Amino acid sequence: MNDVDRVNAALERALRLDDCPERLLAAMRHGVLGGGKRIRARLVYAAGRLAGASNTLLDRAAVAVELIHAYSLIHDDLPAMDDDDLRRGQPTVHVQFDEATAILAGDALQALAFEVLTHRSVDAETARRWVAILAKAAGPEGMVAGQTLDIAGEDRSLSLAEVEAIHRRKTGALLHASVAMGATAGELSDPEVAAADRFGAEIGLAFQIHDDVLDATTATEVLGKPQGSDQRQGKSTYVSALGLDVAKREAQRRFEDACGHLATFADRARELTDLAHLIVSRTH
Amino acid sequence: MNDVDRVNAALERALRLDDCPERLLAAMRHGVLGGGKRIRARLVYAAGRLAGASNTLLDRAAVAVELIHAYSLIHDDLPAMDDDDLRRGQPTVHVQFDEATAILAGDALQALAFEVLTHRSVDAETARRWVAILAKAAGPEGMVAGQTLDIAGEDRSLSLAEVEAIHRRKTGALLHASVAMGATAGELSDPEVAAADRFGAEIGLAFQIHDDVLDATTATEVLGKPQGSDQRQGKSTYVSALGLDVAKREAQRRFEDACGHLATFADRARELTDLAHLIVSRTH
Repeated sequence: MNDVDRVNAALERALRLDDCPERLLAAMRHGVLGGGKRIRARLVYAAGRLAGASNTLLDRAAVAVELIHAYSLIHDDLPAMDDDDLRRGQPTVHVQFDEATAILAGDALQALAFEVLTHRSVDAETARRWVAILAKAAGPEGMVAGQTLDIAGEDRSLSLAEVEAIHRRKTGALLHASVAMGATAGELSDPEVAAADRFGAEIGLAFQIHDDVLDATTATEVLGKPQGSDQRQGKSTYVSALGLDVAKREAQRRFEDACGHLATFADRARELTDLAHLIVSRTH
Repeated sequence: MNDVDRVNAALERALRLDDCPERLLAAMRHGVLGGGKRIRARLVYAAGRLAGASNTLLDRAAVAVELIHAYSLIHDDLPAMDDDDLRRGQPTVHVQFDEATAILAGDALQALAFEVLTHRSVDAETARRWVAILAKAAGPEGMVAGQTLDIAGEDRSLSLAEVEAIHRRKTGALLHASVAMGATAGELSDPEVAAADRFGAEIGLAFQIHDDVLDATTATEVLGKPQGSDQRQGKSTYVSALGLDVAKREAQRRFEDACGHLATFADRARELTDLAHLIVSRTH
């Protein structure tokens, strides 16, 4: 089974909850199970296998990062935030259900992500480390900080340094955490973990630069969300700051920097470098 | 130092974040540090000391439950939810700041709660157990389920069993978890932990029944939130289901049941029984 099918099956199992109100569960499932490239989960598996961890152990981390990602999309799409109606080609959760249910579904997914990491199959040391990494990346100095700055930066022109600071947190932090959770799940040495970590930080940024390029260039039907929504919302991006061609080159440069950090692993890092290539060449 | 001062000082420390956007941090601090009775933290400390745990260890659990509680109030008060303007005598977070910031502050506080539990002062086994208890209580089968059912039940008359099911989850689950986190932090035997757990479940329900009574009988200026807001929002409560006098007796009966579970501890449970008494006799 490939990693996408693997995490989708694990997500499906994690979202069978006996004691959850039906409408809440339906909203959570709508937000999580409606497709998605599962890049974060794939980073967990690839980094984790590089570290020698089992797929069964890595399932927990892969599910947790995807649940956090899904909750963040549900909340980002809310009317008070980016006010988006379309996500992955489907109505967003607050459109399909209602605003209160979307807020609650996001809240519930965040809690569930941390619960998943405490599963009995995860040893206590790994569980503590994973919760620490994921909570830090998702919280007030990570993803939520990025979303806060992203909204605050609408309708004014940000410097490239400001855009980078937002991207590193809004999207980069969780991608970075995905690599870190995988890399710390096995038997890597401290310098090897540090190398994987630097890869994670750079590829997280490259992902979002490429996302800016896609937002500016790709048709709505391919993207699954409205084309040009960044520009319409008055958001500063790498494309608005650098122009399209320089932004494309910047994504490529960050990709090369990221892969450079993996040199110490030679061929063993093949899965990670393949994923990194996918991240900066995907078309949606 | 008493437990309220103790947890307030620990919350103040937890909410000094170097890398958090200023406005987001201000909103988080507004939601957490604006007073409050700290009943949940006090349950953690009392149950934890009964189990022989140190105050320093218990600080982490006490902070975490109060952060979860504060996030839940911020989100419950949102226009799409209960739409309340006043909380603890102060403007609610979305009134003082704005709706997006309130959503993000709640999200950030939930992540921070789990991060706090992974502090290096908490051993890995305790951290895993605490994250599991708190995530389950806060999540789609606990607090969020309760809030979902509470909103869905507006404007129709619920049976007493339905009201109890909501109360046990919306408010009861987190109070219950507070006792469970304290009780599992030390050296209690399994039957002793189970006894404390039954106390936690009953006192959590008693708390909310007494809350229903207070909502129906206490003036806005004493309550710090609008009097009669349950009735105005068309919510079913113990008072609407049973009448005021029977609801008062029901709170008293649940209090006595709760304390009955502590018999095995004799005088050692004095702190918990005192807190239980406070819970059903508080005037706001």
